Amino acid sequence: MAVNPNAEIEITAFRWVPEFAQGLVRDLRARWALEEAGLNYRVRLLDQQRPPEYLLEQPFDQVPCFSDGEVRIFETGAIVQYIGEKSEALLPRDKQGRYRAIQWTCAALNSVEPAIFNVLAVDLFYPEEEWAKLRRPGAVDFAKLKLKRVSDWLGDKEWLEGDRFTIGDLIMVTSFRFLRHTDIVAEFPNLAAYVKRGEARPAFQQALGDQLTTFAANQPQPEGAAA
Amino acid sequence: MAVNPNAEIEITAFRWVPEFAQGLVRDLRARWALEEAGLNYRVRLLDQQRPPEYLLEQPFDQVPCFSDGEVRIFETGAIVQYIGEKSEALLPRDKQGRYRAIQWTCAALNSVEPAIFNVLAVDLFYPEEEWAKLRRPGAVDFAKLKLKRVSDWLGDKEWLEGDRFTIGDLIMVTSFRFLRHTDIVAEFPNLAAYVKRGEARPAFQQALGDQLTTFAANQPQPEGAAA
Repeated sequence: MAVNPNAEIEITAFRWVPEFAQGLVRDLRARWALEEAGLNYRVRLLDQQRPPEYLLEQPFDQVPCFSDGEVRIFETGAIVQYIGEKSEALLPRDKQGRYRAIQWTCAALNSVEPAIFNVLAVDLFYPEEEWAKLRRPGAVDFAKLKLKRVSDWLGDKEWLEGDRFTIGDLIMVTSFRFLRHTDIVAEFPNLAAYVKRGEARPAFQQALGDQLTTFAANQPQPEGAAA
Repeated sequence: MAVNPNAEIEITAFRWVPEFAQGLVRDLRARWALEEAGLNYRVRLLDQQRPPEYLLEQPFDQVPCFSDGEVRIFETGAIVQYIGEKSEALLPRDKQGRYRAIQWTCAALNSVEPAIFNVLAVDLFYPEEEWAKLRRPGAVDFAKLKLKRVSDWLGDKEWLEGDRFTIGDLIMVTSFRFLRHTDIVAEFPNLAAYVKRGEARPAFQQALGDQLTTFAANQPQPEGAAA
């Protein structure tokens, strides 16, 4: 386990989130990458109500931020790439391999996740809205089209670029997990197996466990429980 | 002008697109980056109906793809970063500056553009759909929230990280341009001025002109015109 209060690397994360978001919050990506790279890190926990000055660190008021005493950045795409620079386990060193991994990171963030996130928003943020009910079939179809593209590309390969796991897989697998409340990924057996392979990695298991343990420890008490 | 049929660098682009997409298609980002870097490139033009084998190059059937004889990649986020490696004009060489630029590239692609694109989709792809009419106010509000975050961060700075233009600005400015059919960006005077500064750069003007010239030269003729 790489969480260590004395580590030089620091990420931000939420102290607690509602159950639907547990295991999805994006500090998971940074934790996973750090575990793959074997790097210790400490966590600065934030309440749901962040202090206004947090915007100076993270203009979109999200988690995670990352710092290591040398570099201070936000956005998981940039953070996992930076961690990849420190560890060949995540980012190949040859130019082509390196940029194929960066390319898949960008593909997950810009060509796949937005379609997936629109389904998640319809289902979890706006389930009672009339527009969401009308929009859902089209949003699902559009997400499936994106998944089909990745499925066709992946074929029977282990990872997106063959037998080597990279930051591109890390971001793609965590994007697909935003559909865990549906059976959409299961319609693409090779993608379902791909997500399972990602989730079975010890580094993912450690990262997920550390995120969930924090939420469990900070579960709000029902009113009056402390009385 | 950097378009040169004998150049080693090749990008793919569409021969023609309908007017609403002209000046927005994403090969513009690669062209702009190449112009900023002073690199010659050739363009492989594709019809709207791409050959099936194009999916082997670009699994999402989009443009641009990029190759230079050494690296073959897709996704504009990865392409502009790769071009940035060749030119300090786009990507600072110090670690912090470099990763702040990559961070803003990811922020534009994942934290800003999806919200903007949902407004564009409502307005241009689904204007007659009931869900789109009901959704529009919320989609606009969500996009404005993202723009406000960038506006607050930008303040009176010239570019996102100060006085130096990077790939982060290139991707952010081209993301904001997806709202050109609205007056949403104009509600944030510092963002409107920021987009204008980006568009005023000679490299942008050259890139845009080259894209539009191609479309004009390949404008479909009305049926019977050739008879």
